[in-house]
Amino acid sequence: MKKFINHPENAVEEMLEGLAVLSPGLARLGGHKVLVRADADRIRDKQVAVISGGGSGHEPAHAGYVGEGMLSAGIAGEVFTSPDTDSVYAAIKAVAGKPGALLVVKNYTGDRLNFGLAAEMARSEGIPVEMIIVDDDVALDSKTQFAGARGLAGTIFVHKLVGAAAAEGKSLAEVAAIGRGAIKSLATMGVSFSAGTSPAVGKPSFELGEDEMELGLGIHGEPGVTRTRMQPADELTETLLNQILKRGNFGNDRRVVLMINNLGATTAMELAIVARHAMTMLEKKGYTVERLYAGTLLSSLDMAGISISVLGVDDASLRWLDAPTSAPAWPNASKQRPGKVEAQLAASAAVDNGCA
Amino acid sequence: MKKFINHPENAVEEMLEGLAVLSPGLARLGGHKVLVRADADRIRDKQVAVISGGGSGHEPAHAGYVGEGMLSAGIAGEVFTSPDTDSVYAAIKAVAGKPGALLVVKNYTGDRLNFGLAAEMARSEGIPVEMIIVDDDVALDSKTQFAGARGLAGTIFVHKLVGAAAAEGKSLAEVAAIGRGAIKSLATMGVSFSAGTSPAVGKPSFELGEDEMELGLGIHGEPGVTRTRMQPADELTETLLNQILKRGNFGNDRRVVLMINNLGATTAMELAIVARHAMTMLEKKGYTVERLYAGTLLSSLDMAGISISVLGVDDASLRWLDAPTSAPAWPNASKQRPGKVEAQLAASAAVDNGCA
Repeated sequence: MKKFINHPENAVEEMLEGLAVLSPGLARLGGHKVLVRADADRIRDKQVAVISGGGSGHEPAHAGYVGEGMLSAGIAGEVFTSPDTDSVYAAIKAVAGKPGALLVVKNYTGDRLNFGLAAEMARSEGIPVEMIIVDDDVALDSKTQFAGARGLAGTIFVHKLVGAAAAEGKSLAEVAAIGRGAIKSLATMGVSFSAGTSPAVGKPSFELGEDEMELGLGIHGEPGVTRTRMQPADELTETLLNQILKRGNFGNDRRVVLMINNLGATTAMELAIVARHAMTMLEKKGYTVERLYAGTLLSSLDMAGISISVLGVDDASLRWLDAPTSAPAWPNASKQRPGKVEAQLAASAAVDNGCA
Repeated sequence: MKKFINHPENAVEEMLEGLAVLSPGLARLGGHKVLVRADADRIRDKQVAVISGGGSGHEPAHAGYVGEGMLSAGIAGEVFTSPDTDSVYAAIKAVAGKPGALLVVKNYTGDRLNFGLAAEMARSEGIPVEMIIVDDDVALDSKTQFAGARGLAGTIFVHKLVGAAAAEGKSLAEVAAIGRGAIKSLATMGVSFSAGTSPAVGKPSFELGEDEMELGLGIHGEPGVTRTRMQPADELTETLLNQILKRGNFGNDRRVVLMINNLGATTAMELAIVARHAMTMLEKKGYTVERLYAGTLLSSLDMAGISISVLGVDDASLRWLDAPTSAPAWPNASKQRPGKVEAQLAASAAVDNGCA
């Protein structure tokens, strides 16, 4: 394993120290792997605190989404390991005031358990706490899975929606309902070309053949739907999007936002190639893609692969997605020009170059 | 090779189509691999046009830096291949008006030649054109190199400085002088753990052993100073920074800005670990780190590695670095809190967690 680390057992701790230096708007919670808004005390009694977290190795999640208009606190476990209950409880105590706290939890057994216990502990002290579970993975048939569908990169959309709604002053019940509504209208599917390497393990978590990819792989290397031969980018984009559109529930108006997420080692060149075809395909199928986001939003260490997320939206959710935030990792959206992408591509190719 | 591409020979073209979709503020120049500000006509006679470019494979450079307050046009060659003279000339014609154009060129023979010829062609038509050459690599002793030092990620600082100065209405001579001054005060050094894979080649451009890294490698895989055994992150950070501080020229005030650049496949966890120690080390040596930037700023396909850049600054250059820009890839700076990083780390670790 070749990584910029000192000792594997210190990697998460040193990362958190680095993130505190990189993002002076964040403050470290003493004794815990938790980063909170530096101004948490100022807003404690003014708005619902939104808290999320999970194992490390998914950066910029979750610390990168801590900031005004998004999360109040991000809790990190060791790599691919759920944060402990004490840390979640400490985070709730640190940032939640009278309006209470919403916990946004990805659907993994350990996370559900530890966030759930911490929620109980906080409630027993009179802090109102609600928990919502994100299960946006549509690769596997969730009915056949004992634990239900997994939480993937679409979670970042949920962070933004509930974070903006909380900043608007909505009540805990309202913010939780907004989150639950978004989760119903959210679908994600990923593909991996090669596994990431955890500092503590020192080698890739699985091996794929030279011309092999795994569809629907989880963000911790959990098994996907199938291992199959590589496909060209456009065909692969269609494979992912067809499953997303088949399983997803985006509303009758077909207004959606689209996320092309780098799982780690994928280049910006490849993301752009995928984005181009995904936009064309969605518009051909009658969807209006209101916003397009591309980048490293929720990763799986240095996995080569991407996930695509689609979220059904209305005017209110667009307003929350567009609301300003100081969270360092929330990306700029591409607000599409009026008209179809194909027309935009044709028009952009036809710009007069000023030459005779 | 496993990549999200269709045919290798179309990868750059399809990437540019994707970037036009991802960034509606950019417009494609017909018949050329050039993206220009969509509002180029509006500003043509109001400010110096700043133009840069180079081979593809370094995304988000250069299209990601096109926008208000940075570049007027970005020119892409094929992967690791200089753009042709016609494309550079077309870009100059498309965006340069009476105030003229500044070409920001990294010090590679092909780029110097093709940008230089295009500048001559434009001058012969009465368009004022200046060219500045960025040679920020301090890994190799530039006196022993026939072609001089290479241009690396520090170039992005130059784009921002001259772009902001141009937007302020400075003359071509002034903007060029600002760029040349910055280049004198700029130093970069990189390290690679593994090579990137070009779509057209289909395999990594070089091989390193299991426990081997290459110091001072170029962004196209050009040879570095030495291949040596891996070092822990803190030691490696010191190796790079010591060379940068030895060769660089940052001014008597020791006010600098720092960039930790992901060359492709490095994780955010690793960047944070490097940033943490680099900040501590610079402050211990008496430097004031005014701004810290970390992310994928100028890559080498999916190379695992980083580069560190240091730029000496004064109040004027800080103002230009902080000036707003619509360029999609310019990162948010971390403006450091007053006081030393060590104190900040200690303070952040000591935040009361609100628990009894």
